[in-house]
Amino acid sequence: MRTRYLAIIPMLALGWACTPAGETASESESDEAAQTETVAQAEPSSPLMQRAQALFEAVPDTPPELEDNPITPVKVELGKMLYFEPRLSQSWLISCNTCHNLGLGGVDLMDTSIGHGWQAGPRNAPTVLNSVYNLAQFWDGRAADLEEQAKGPVQASVEMASDPERAVQTLRSIPEYGEWFAKAFPGEAEPVTFDNMARAIEAFEATLITPGSPFDRWLAGDNSAMTAVQVEGLETFVSKGCTACHAGLNFGGQGYFAFGVVQAPSDEIRPPGDLGRFAVTSTAADEYVFKSPSLRNIELTAPYFHSGKVWSLEEAVAVMGSAQLGAVLTPDEIGAITAFLETLTGNQPEVEYPILPPHTADTPLPDVSVPTAAAPH
Amino acid sequence: MRTRYLAIIPMLALGWACTPAGETASESESDEAAQTETVAQAEPSSPLMQRAQALFEAVPDTPPELEDNPITPVKVELGKMLYFEPRLSQSWLISCNTCHNLGLGGVDLMDTSIGHGWQAGPRNAPTVLNSVYNLAQFWDGRAADLEEQAKGPVQASVEMASDPERAVQTLRSIPEYGEWFAKAFPGEAEPVTFDNMARAIEAFEATLITPGSPFDRWLAGDNSAMTAVQVEGLETFVSKGCTACHAGLNFGGQGYFAFGVVQAPSDEIRPPGDLGRFAVTSTAADEYVFKSPSLRNIELTAPYFHSGKVWSLEEAVAVMGSAQLGAVLTPDEIGAITAFLETLTGNQPEVEYPILPPHTADTPLPDVSVPTAAAPH
Repeated sequence: MRTRYLAIIPMLALGWACTPAGETASESESDEAAQTETVAQAEPSSPLMQRAQALFEAVPDTPPELEDNPITPVKVELGKMLYFEPRLSQSWLISCNTCHNLGLGGVDLMDTSIGHGWQAGPRNAPTVLNSVYNLAQFWDGRAADLEEQAKGPVQASVEMASDPERAVQTLRSIPEYGEWFAKAFPGEAEPVTFDNMARAIEAFEATLITPGSPFDRWLAGDNSAMTAVQVEGLETFVSKGCTACHAGLNFGGQGYFAFGVVQAPSDEIRPPGDLGRFAVTSTAADEYVFKSPSLRNIELTAPYFHSGKVWSLEEAVAVMGSAQLGAVLTPDEIGAITAFLETLTGNQPEVEYPILPPHTADTPLPDVSVPTAAAPH
Repeated sequence: MRTRYLAIIPMLALGWACTPAGETASESESDEAAQTETVAQAEPSSPLMQRAQALFEAVPDTPPELEDNPITPVKVELGKMLYFEPRLSQSWLISCNTCHNLGLGGVDLMDTSIGHGWQAGPRNAPTVLNSVYNLAQFWDGRAADLEEQAKGPVQASVEMASDPERAVQTLRSIPEYGEWFAKAFPGEAEPVTFDNMARAIEAFEATLITPGSPFDRWLAGDNSAMTAVQVEGLETFVSKGCTACHAGLNFGGQGYFAFGVVQAPSDEIRPPGDLGRFAVTSTAADEYVFKSPSLRNIELTAPYFHSGKVWSLEEAVAVMGSAQLGAVLTPDEIGAITAFLETLTGNQPEVEYPILPPHTADTPLPDVSVPTAAAPH
């Protein structure tokens, strides 16, 4: 279900403070004053803040609505259980959370994920955090939304290595899941389906958003939320044109762009065998085209790029400069941009670890075997 | 008792009954009454209850004290982070929770655990729940306590495949861990050590206890907490002599016993190559001797025995009858004992999933490689 997400939230109505950027300590009082004067909007923002307010948007405190998949508390709770449910994998070892670890910025900190049989997947695991705001899912956008995405790893032979039949058989064999699905999808004759599994996971994942980042607080008028270097980094980020691919609410995830539009990165960083979105569209213009990743929480989600070959955020910034902008960024510029990117780390989701219901004699047992054709990593 | 999951629902304000399924309102009132009358014990217990009160003990609501390792909130919180910390493994994929999943009764539901390189470990993963009450840790008791135990899997080549140096280097490279260790172990010149890592994990694990089981409520005088069949199962459990190995607070974990003292189980269930405690003591009398496992939450922790070859609790009960007691239990006896064992499922730990601190450039990177000598499962 695609997000019904309107980019035109009237931010000025949310209470922007109007003190100029670059002011110091004594501003906290005037911040407060500014906040109480929201309606009046007496003072103008700095040009940079005005620019930023036009380019970006804070992560809201509550998740967006999903088309055709209403987010209800019971569905979110079920989705959380399924997100942490290793019995959805053939081995009973791998859950969504294995590669999208909610304690680790929603990723696995691997170059490419390790899955069933210790096989390595082809691409770096994107973060689940704020992924509901992306225009599509996967690096190549081949899933329209999180519901469609959730079905992929369950079936991928190098990930969870299960299939829809096994997954549904598993869920139907566990009476408590039957009760949960019935509550989450009321009125359905057979609520325990592969589609509803994915819908529940989508509903939970939609709640995995990270409001409250220093940048978002700054954007809302709190000048003390960013340091001078971070503000300088933002200015550089904007003036260099990084926002062509990384803007909006999610600082990315809003479109498809060639990786190496000016200068091809090294083969290690951009492996010649992975043509990106070309595999989805079969259009020559889509060679090495990828969805721009969100930069929110980027300091938590190394290693970087679809290949996962760059561990340092500074290096990733430098690569972007040369590959996308044809610019050799100075160490100061790289440092400032990196410092700015660190302001995009928001409040991480608070999640109570779910207690999963017991299986029964009807539940398909775990199978850790790997087809002989598949070579372990 | 599988109703705990339903009890989460009222939080969600969806109008589910506030009493667990299967109980009526008046029963929960009598629960409360029974709890308030516990001290007085006004009415005389039945002979079976008196016997049970002599043999067993309820799981307390609060964890026990640890020798030389005071349990403090900050240490428990640190221990929780470390328990879920995959960067303590060489691959960054495996944490304590991988094989001792707190959503799955503290186990991994595998015959034997899968670890680094998809290698299979030699024995079934025992539950972490209530493990603080065992006289020692591991199936063969080779670790005196949870602190000593915690150091094992981190280093085992088929589990987390790391080593103390790498683990300490990892923890010291992450500034936030330095702060946590300093708070958890105040006054120490270098608090970030492998020993303190294990102490923090032990402190957290000590909190993973499961009070409130139907049996414990029955033991406290609430006759409604067990069904007639379950009480019959308890009677059979006691009269057949199961309590020789499974008694006390933890229904096991209190001593070492030969597996197959009357009749050797099949080679599949008791593999000839695993001599149990003999490997620890080198004493012939310890061949096939194992620590008796706790039976608390046993319905959640299939498959059974150190080999993990038995998936059905009924079959496990039958095997115990023949192997340990030389008795062929009738289907009714097996059914009643199994029904009784299901009353040992207590309230599962409520754990907020920890947000783990970011690594730095000094952190040793993940290494998923497997020595060529090691064969994947």
